[in-house]
Amino acid sequence: MVIILTVVAIVLGLSYASFNFFIVKNKDEGTKEMQEIASAIRIGANTFIRYEYKVLALTCFLLFLLLSIFLAPYCGIAFLIGNIMSGSAGIVGMKIATYANVRVTNEAKKTLNIGKTLKVALSGGSVMGLCVSGFALLGLILCFLIFGYQLSDIKAISNWIRIEFIPFSMTLSSYALGCSVIAIFNRVGGGIYTKAADMGADLVGKTEAGIPEDDPRNPATIADNVGDNVGDVAGLGSDLLESYVGAIVSSIILAIYLFVSFNAKGMVLSSELLKNLYLYPIAFSAIGLISCVVGLSFVLNKDLKQNPHKDLNFATFLSASLTAIFTLVITVIMFNGCDLGNLPFNFGIFSPWCSAIMGLLSGVIIGTIAEYYTSYDYNPTKKIAIASKEGAAITVTQGLSVGMKSCMLSLIVLGIALLISYYSAGIFGVAMAAVGMLSFVATTVSVDTYGPISDNAGGIAEMANLPKEVRDITDKLDSVGNTTAAIGKGFAIGSAAFATLSLMVSYLYSFNPPKQELIFNLMSPLVLVGTLVGAALPYYFSGMLIESVSKAAQCMVLEVRRQFKTITGLLEGTAKPDYERCIEISSKGALAEMRIPALISILFPVISGFLLGPLFVGGILLGSTISAIMLAIFCGNAGGAWDNSKKYIEAENLEGECKGSTAHKAAVVGDTIGDPLKDTVGPSLDILIKIMSTVSIIAVSIFKNYNLLEFVKGLFL
Amino acid sequence: MVIILTVVAIVLGLSYASFNFFIVKNKDEGTKEMQEIASAIRIGANTFIRYEYKVLALTCFLLFLLLSIFLAPYCGIAFLIGNIMSGSAGIVGMKIATYANVRVTNEAKKTLNIGKTLKVALSGGSVMGLCVSGFALLGLILCFLIFGYQLSDIKAISNWIRIEFIPFSMTLSSYALGCSVIAIFNRVGGGIYTKAADMGADLVGKTEAGIPEDDPRNPATIADNVGDNVGDVAGLGSDLLESYVGAIVSSIILAIYLFVSFNAKGMVLSSELLKNLYLYPIAFSAIGLISCVVGLSFVLNKDLKQNPHKDLNFATFLSASLTAIFTLVITVIMFNGCDLGNLPFNFGIFSPWCSAIMGLLSGVIIGTIAEYYTSYDYNPTKKIAIASKEGAAITVTQGLSVGMKSCMLSLIVLGIALLISYYSAGIFGVAMAAVGMLSFVATTVSVDTYGPISDNAGGIAEMANLPKEVRDITDKLDSVGNTTAAIGKGFAIGSAAFATLSLMVSYLYSFNPPKQELIFNLMSPLVLVGTLVGAALPYYFSGMLIESVSKAAQCMVLEVRRQFKTITGLLEGTAKPDYERCIEISSKGALAEMRIPALISILFPVISGFLLGPLFVGGILLGSTISAIMLAIFCGNAGGAWDNSKKYIEAENLEGECKGSTAHKAAVVGDTIGDPLKDTVGPSLDILIKIMSTVSIIAVSIFKNYNLLEFVKGLFL
Repeated sequence: MVIILTVVAIVLGLSYASFNFFIVKNKDEGTKEMQEIASAIRIGANTFIRYEYKVLALTCFLLFLLLSIFLAPYCGIAFLIGNIMSGSAGIVGMKIATYANVRVTNEAKKTLNIGKTLKVALSGGSVMGLCVSGFALLGLILCFLIFGYQLSDIKAISNWIRIEFIPFSMTLSSYALGCSVIAIFNRVGGGIYTKAADMGADLVGKTEAGIPEDDPRNPATIADNVGDNVGDVAGLGSDLLESYVGAIVSSIILAIYLFVSFNAKGMVLSSELLKNLYLYPIAFSAIGLISCVVGLSFVLNKDLKQNPHKDLNFATFLSASLTAIFTLVITVIMFNGCDLGNLPFNFGIFSPWCSAIMGLLSGVIIGTIAEYYTSYDYNPTKKIAIASKEGAAITVTQGLSVGMKSCMLSLIVLGIALLISYYSAGIFGVAMAAVGMLSFVATTVSVDTYGPISDNAGGIAEMANLPKEVRDITDKLDSVGNTTAAIGKGFAIGSAAFATLSLMVSYLYSFNPPKQELIFNLMSPLVLVGTLVGAALPYYFSGMLIESVSKAAQCMVLEVRRQFKTITGLLEGTAKPDYERCIEISSKGALAEMRIPALISILFPVISGFLLGPLFVGGILLGSTISAIMLAIFCGNAGGAWDNSKKYIEAENLEGECKGSTAHKAAVVGDTIGDPLKDTVGPSLDILIKIMSTVSIIAVSIFKNYNLLEFVKGLFL
Repeated sequence: MVIILTVVAIVLGLSYASFNFFIVKNKDEGTKEMQEIASAIRIGANTFIRYEYKVLALTCFLLFLLLSIFLAPYCGIAFLIGNIMSGSAGIVGMKIATYANVRVTNEAKKTLNIGKTLKVALSGGSVMGLCVSGFALLGLILCFLIFGYQLSDIKAISNWIRIEFIPFSMTLSSYALGCSVIAIFNRVGGGIYTKAADMGADLVGKTEAGIPEDDPRNPATIADNVGDNVGDVAGLGSDLLESYVGAIVSSIILAIYLFVSFNAKGMVLSSELLKNLYLYPIAFSAIGLISCVVGLSFVLNKDLKQNPHKDLNFATFLSASLTAIFTLVITVIMFNGCDLGNLPFNFGIFSPWCSAIMGLLSGVIIGTIAEYYTSYDYNPTKKIAIASKEGAAITVTQGLSVGMKSCMLSLIVLGIALLISYYSAGIFGVAMAAVGMLSFVATTVSVDTYGPISDNAGGIAEMANLPKEVRDITDKLDSVGNTTAAIGKGFAIGSAAFATLSLMVSYLYSFNPPKQELIFNLMSPLVLVGTLVGAALPYYFSGMLIESVSKAAQCMVLEVRRQFKTITGLLEGTAKPDYERCIEISSKGALAEMRIPALISILFPVISGFLLGPLFVGGILLGSTISAIMLAIFCGNAGGAWDNSKKYIEAENLEGECKGSTAHKAAVVGDTIGDPLKDTVGPSLDILIKIMSTVSIIAVSIFKNYNLLEFVKGLFL
């Protein structure tokens, strides 16, 4: 029944996505100039993605071979399914974004109505959102249909030259890994691309030449707009698809491990209950997708008024509430009369639902906290704007302070949610909290994707020299997009935390004997040292990413300066800049720099495992999770606050200051520093910790028996 | 015998300190102008310390009462001894620094000889170094002499309304807490003072008015020099005294707990062995102090040549080697023929010595890593300087990247040292690694203190308009001081890591039944949530400190701007600025802002404990330790690298750039941002984690039985 429900949800979701795709694509593209600009952006984005996917294809093929040979062919196939699903969602979403941008501009130009313009942008965004959820569930259902036979005897353990694992949990882990690998490349590559272009454009254009953002005279401006599509659309989509899959898969695997471990200890759980447990997260997500279709179509068919922020929040709120209500119904249907055995379900059959709802609520609260710290309606960001009067240095220190202070509140919320969801349904509850938080991902991604589409639309309006009223509409939409992005980041990091913790528990189950009580003892020096070294990894990873962005941005700065100097008449607007050259620099920079960080995230835990064994890797997972959560919140909020404090000054809220004043210049420095932090580092860290956990779950079956430490011990004992 | 050895070491150390004090004080102060400037700095420093100590006296008195009433009067007394020792070391060191500064200037002026000038500066610094080690050991010996009777029956547990603890371990913890409380106030207060003055002076003076550093026309310049004395001298001294005491005390307590726990499990350790174990860290430190006296006096009596860097390194190297050799002898004397029982000593009687030497070595290596990342002889800092050409934003991002990347290598070294020292002598070995790392603290602090003294000397030379050759000598000494400071920070954070880890183990022993195997299980949700919330604490604490500095600096900027505007003839040099007003602003800012962070560090674990009990606090300690180590290394190295990349440009190493060029201005922004990170946040984090552990060890005896969670459980069960 759950399978049928899910297939219905997938069909519904993907059909609605195609419907919106064609609705948007059939709209008018506007003037010839607009068409030209849009086409330049589209070509740039397609070219980059094509190159990126070539690199990806090679990496994925290698990993496919490794998985097929060292574990089992079905792992390789599941991995490929993950690749295809995540890759497709990214491409479809980006395609529609590059069609939607110019149509949004044209709608604004034609109607001068913010509600109608919003609809076009949101329709475009909804394609990405629905595809994320639809493709993720599609892949999952494929795994169930093709490899579901492995579930018939769940206690059968595959055993081949001392490599032991439970087949279906390994299949699902491989599927999740497939999604994660695409996500890390998309996020890191796209993140470097977009921020190198953005920083390069701002540093010379805004700061040195004093021309406005997206001015057609700026050679880096097309690259900047391409970046929005490859980084903020394709990157974000595959990132959240990965989180979504990670959350669902970790809860399914956990259900299987719990079952095996309970049975080994002689506490019998019926296989009917097991089936309900592992189908529950899928059912929950399927209902979430259906709720999102209802929620989105309601908003898209409503007569929208002047307040886009309210409309978008309404879409999110509606989808979340429908999810909560419908899942309550399915919970009763699935678990009613079910014998819960020895499961630590403190609220009876409602326990997993309660945990999921805790996740959902804490996601919303963490998003609100992010909004408090990054919106200029509140004190933290205002203080940064005021500090700008004392120059760039104080602006930066004040922003660092806001980012650092913002961690505490989010972590307390996360901690409370974790305790309650654990109390409600044990560690399975923690996994369900992640599922709950992401259940309405289709709407959050739709709302998130609407942001860069509007940003692009604004860019096209500026470049095509459209009247100020058009730009006003797109600006308004864009600024709302900043807030929704901050809230989206709250969901991303919160769900990453829950998902990683439950993946960690699955990791521990996968090398400890099932009869044994699960203990992860920090008094073991290997665990402790692993934790310390692991905690340094996100710092190293972040440092590398920042350096990559700043390296690529430096090249961009030199190129833009060169063009301003050598192309006569450029600043006067009589000559055209060489846009292609800048696109090339961003592309090359991103492609060259993305490999090492992406590979580190995959190889670090594996190599550590082959050196010092599973306990050490456990420590690494713990340490890097802790450290990555903090860094991600810090980077996201500091970056967002800098960005909006600049906007606060631009909106002339600070007495005596305006665009171009000394305080504004200081604020631009802050914004530029925040760019790589909030859009490259922060989002990549979420993926880093999940990919490391997934890789470890897969590789531990090998390195638990084959590692240097065991080998050395064997020599001496 | 160990007691006698220690008394000899203390007498030797403190006599040599007084000898150097009077040698320096009897030197000539130079011209009337120099005397006036020096006296203004001295008065400013004394005034601030007086106010600060008043705040401290109140806090300490309250804590004294709490300890005496809730635990035992002897805890209160030991706490006061700690207060007095740490307070005295801070005051004596700061006094001599404010005498030495002008005498260094005068020596440079008189002799124009860098070797002779270095000797005066190092003699001044050595007073602080020797006092740190001497006073710390003095307090410890006092505790042994007064409360040593508690050791006669170590298994007797004080038990008063369900508050249980081992008396002597509580006495020593209280003593360590006494030192820590002084240290956190001195570090935080001094850190805010010095950086507010420094940033304020730089932001207006260098950046806006374009006058050189320490120019007498800058109203904040005296405050800046006062700051060096209260922050970098008094703050650093009490910081390292606290680390030193923390390391020794944690190893003694651990020895006691190991003994109790071994006996409870029926594995007999002789009381003679126990005595040797707890006396060993004291003997090790006493020998370290004697070695430092030998090392320092050798260098101070040598004919110094032109290379101050080499001479200082030689002093450190000599002290460290002598310590290593002499302690090997004492190890044989103490442990020879001793039955080691079931102790996990893998290298026999040499095990604790090996662990200590691992600590010593890793300290040196971490220092070297810090030098690599922060000295402009190497690539990381050079890259920042090159990035400055592209403006402030890229300078800052590049610096952030260097700081973040620098964590990994240090943590790997720390991890290896931890594994080996653990392998060698178990958890006692980890504690001994901290002792080893800090055993020659007298020399490291002497070398560290020489830095701010030279910095002050340079300031006085500039303000008194002395010839360029004089300033050249002080500049050279100052720049060497920057490198030694970076190395010193490596020791501080490394030893903090080891000491905190062993304190954490003591904490676990202090609430777990002695018979039980020590397990700290991360699978417990309370531990896990504690770890997550704890990890956010150092971020919150750092954010607060940065904000405090930036708040005080903003006041300073406004005041300096006001003076430049309203005092006619100030910039032309015909009128004098109002120095006192700036000193007042720094003082008030520091005093107002230091309370909350200092109180948080004491109250956070205690309140958490009374809410959710000892497991949650254990998690907090773990999380905050991990997060603080990373942040401290990141802040220290990023700050140091920015500072030196600016110096690199000033020394005209970057083609086409010099003081005042665009790249230099960008580098100044980086340096200003790094200031609070490296000199306020980084060093305070070391103290934060130790004070939290010490407080928890003390308070757990109460909150293990009295906490809200237990109370609620009691209601329902």
